[in-house]
Amino acid sequence: MNGTKKRNFDPDELREERVSGETVYNGRILNLRVDRVKLPHGGIRPREVVEHKKAVMILAENDRGEILLINQFRYPAGEVLTELPAGIVEPGEDCAAAAERELREETGWKPGKISKIGEFYTSPGFSDELLTMYYAADLTPDGLPFDEDEFIVPSFFSKEAALALAEDGGIRDAKSLYGIYWWLYGTLRRG
Amino acid sequence: MNGTKKRNFDPDELREERVSGETVYNGRILNLRVDRVKLPHGGIRPREVVEHKKAVMILAENDRGEILLINQFRYPAGEVLTELPAGIVEPGEDCAAAAERELREETGWKPGKISKIGEFYTSPGFSDELLTMYYAADLTPDGLPFDEDEFIVPSFFSKEAALALAEDGGIRDAKSLYGIYWWLYGTLRRG
Repeated sequence: MNGTKKRNFDPDELREERVSGETVYNGRILNLRVDRVKLPHGGIRPREVVEHKKAVMILAENDRGEILLINQFRYPAGEVLTELPAGIVEPGEDCAAAAERELREETGWKPGKISKIGEFYTSPGFSDELLTMYYAADLTPDGLPFDEDEFIVPSFFSKEAALALAEDGGIRDAKSLYGIYWWLYGTLRRG
Repeated sequence: MNGTKKRNFDPDELREERVSGETVYNGRILNLRVDRVKLPHGGIRPREVVEHKKAVMILAENDRGEILLINQFRYPAGEVLTELPAGIVEPGEDCAAAAERELREETGWKPGKISKIGEFYTSPGFSDELLTMYYAADLTPDGLPFDEDEFIVPSFFSKEAALALAEDGGIRDAKSLYGIYWWLYGTLRRG
């Protein structure tokens, strides 16, 4: 293997096929499934899959060009993280409606405009969690009650403040780093 | 709640304290722990935590200003994803050494220079997975044998090609989207 050769490939040649499997845990926000899969070379291997509900993330910008970030204790991380607002889509709920609801619950601001930017996995090596990102604007103060078990402190950040935070290790969450750099890049490119 | 008031907060006021817990699954790439925690208002709630080994991601740029992306079937996602090279840090291994090893294994290129950019959680709502990002340059073709169970197709992408891929939904992985926009933003800002 002496360096990368650019070459086409057939995605089906990389595919792993499920042979069998079982759910080993059914929980509150996730389930854990362990499957046996057939690899492209024919070998059988285990695959651990954390099943997670769909989620949404919102980059909300006010008319002064500032975005909303929230501070929240994240128990798995063991620390308070500064993140873009995000949350789980409820059963039967539309993703855009979930994005508007989460923004109102977590920050107290209601978007007049909301548009889908894209969707991505957060940890595709071990989880099926798929997150849809929205851009929100035309914000008016019109909150919804917090989830009583969520303790969240929202703030607005200018471009300069958000960049300083991202560069200095103040944002320690992959999806939020993506959202912030997506926004900074778009702003810089438009001039 | 009528809109965000910028205010200081004491991180300890947001903290959740572990009361008890048990490991419900011990696996190959992850463990699952279910803890009972005390919330700031005193209530006791369950918290599901996927324990995962530390990981690294590498943004490797050649002297033509192109970066390495890999194509790999991701079983939890059920599709081939295009991502920045990444992998798990071995027991006792230094993160920078892991980054160099993963790049050589997955792409066949060895970095002459490698520097840490930062670290972040991939899914802090349910997992402790912490990923350290590296920037690598001065690439020479000097691969290491693939993990025999990994089927990976690497390619170089120019700035224009990487941006088109990211904007058109061709990158469906949060950490890779962050890495690409971090790189595009830095390049654009330097002019």
